[in-house]
Amino acid sequence: MGEFEFIEGIRRAFGDNGRGDIIFGIGDDCAVLPAPDGDAFVVTTDMLVEGVHFLRDSTTARELGAKALAVNLSDVAAMGARPMASFLSIALPTECRGEWAAEFMDGYRELSAQHEVTLAGGDTTSSLSGVAVNVCVIGRTAAERLKFRSGARAGDIVVVCGPLGESAAGLRDILDGRPDTPLARIHRNPTPQVAEGEWLGGRPEVHSMIDLSDGLASDLMHILRASKVRAEIELSAIPTPVSVELAVTGGEDYKLLFTAAPDDFARLAENYLARFGSPLHAVGRIVNGPTEIVWIENGTPVTKEWRGFTHF
Amino acid sequence: MGEFEFIEGIRRAFGDNGRGDIIFGIGDDCAVLPAPDGDAFVVTTDMLVEGVHFLRDSTTARELGAKALAVNLSDVAAMGARPMASFLSIALPTECRGEWAAEFMDGYRELSAQHEVTLAGGDTTSSLSGVAVNVCVIGRTAAERLKFRSGARAGDIVVVCGPLGESAAGLRDILDGRPDTPLARIHRNPTPQVAEGEWLGGRPEVHSMIDLSDGLASDLMHILRASKVRAEIELSAIPTPVSVELAVTGGEDYKLLFTAAPDDFARLAENYLARFGSPLHAVGRIVNGPTEIVWIENGTPVTKEWRGFTHF
Repeated sequence: MGEFEFIEGIRRAFGDNGRGDIIFGIGDDCAVLPAPDGDAFVVTTDMLVEGVHFLRDSTTARELGAKALAVNLSDVAAMGARPMASFLSIALPTECRGEWAAEFMDGYRELSAQHEVTLAGGDTTSSLSGVAVNVCVIGRTAAERLKFRSGARAGDIVVVCGPLGESAAGLRDILDGRPDTPLARIHRNPTPQVAEGEWLGGRPEVHSMIDLSDGLASDLMHILRASKVRAEIELSAIPTPVSVELAVTGGEDYKLLFTAAPDDFARLAENYLARFGSPLHAVGRIVNGPTEIVWIENGTPVTKEWRGFTHF
Repeated sequence: MGEFEFIEGIRRAFGDNGRGDIIFGIGDDCAVLPAPDGDAFVVTTDMLVEGVHFLRDSTTARELGAKALAVNLSDVAAMGARPMASFLSIALPTECRGEWAAEFMDGYRELSAQHEVTLAGGDTTSSLSGVAVNVCVIGRTAAERLKFRSGARAGDIVVVCGPLGESAAGLRDILDGRPDTPLARIHRNPTPQVAEGEWLGGRPEVHSMIDLSDGLASDLMHILRASKVRAEIELSAIPTPVSVELAVTGGEDYKLLFTAAPDDFARLAENYLARFGSPLHAVGRIVNGPTEIVWIENGTPVTKEWRGFTHF
């Protein structure tokens, strides 16, 4: 049983047993709650477990503290919202109580301060085995600025907000015993596109958005399934300093992936470049048809057995 | 470094680096956010770690699923709010993927349905060692119904909403190899006072509230520190079927503890009994003076070296 089947099973089992206050629950990057003044709160949570998501001897405590927050900030950004408050739960083995915990909090605090995110609560406990960290982040935005996975329409351009595959290549370096290559440092220090996500939230021509945590092959499928559309992706257009395969299947890039109306895309890209100093990358388009990614090489569809990355 | 010192350190380090949207952050059972129509959202999170909070061979998966939610519902109840949505993160070792996980979700779902709490999101991951579970719950209520730890006033009656020490005695039974005594079952199946908390939230004569997760000796001190007051507790008034010491120092009772205006207490107790079929227990009173619990036995202060329960 993979993570998606597990979550799908939960969703079916719970059905609508709950209340009407939740605008949107399981199935997007964040759940959505109504906030005052026509705003919406978005809520996301992510758990990092030692040995599964990180190795304590190849990640510093400071990096891990930042990363635990970063992955959640990325989910909030993918909704077009601005992160506001975090909740940190951490289970610490005895040997991590002192200096290690202090450095972890330094990393967590530094990234919190950078994005003006309040630490609003949490839980600390001991652990008999490894470190486990859970972070929950709440963001806020005007409700009409929210971006969902379900908004993609036929004709949309598919866009990624930066180079892909670097983090996966860096992880490979780390596992190969080269923990200090530039790519390894990128893997250990994910940079969530917080300002970019909030800015894209304000652009009505952006129709759907998600963050790339499990690879383009996996995360784009979430948009396609939620929007009931198909995508054609031009392999040569995928921005990557490593291989296209790693760019498409590698996890933890934490770049934003969105779809946007074609007519307004040139101006959007120009404004984005002016605002953030880096280009948007159009990598394909949304079409009608069975929910699937069609990989295009030199104008011709090619068959690839590419799957995204999974932690489960 | 204990949990309280760790949290206090975090609070000092983070200071007010955040935003003005959080009404109240670290330091109460829940953080508070503004909700539409003059309401407030409350947010709490708790982590349960195998070997620290539970033993897999003496707790069923179903019980653990319910407990992971229950402890958070209790925190929401302690604010006077009604739980609304939950977020579940779970790290599962390979051997827990199939039946164990399904039973865990049965327990979680059953308690969710009982209190109409939507599962709105979460995270599932594998674990190389034990099970780790983090639950975050969001509740809602009218802002003026919120109860804080800081509201106790000199003259208030100190009240507990049920017998204490049963869970701690049950844990002792379990550790002694008797996992099926009635007390052990109480320990394994905590019952959060969800309806009671929401009802007490609507009573303006209730000035402060907290849930008893670490024992009266520890949790009442949170109210005293936050309210800058002192308490005198009459030992003979503490409701317990076990020993007074266990009632005062044992953890995980998840009964509500509150302080209320003395003039209105008789009517409050009468209405509570009529509504819930069980009595309120007045165990002492709030007085001015140094922040401390004074234990009274037969009218005379007695010295006790009692500390609450800690998981850290």
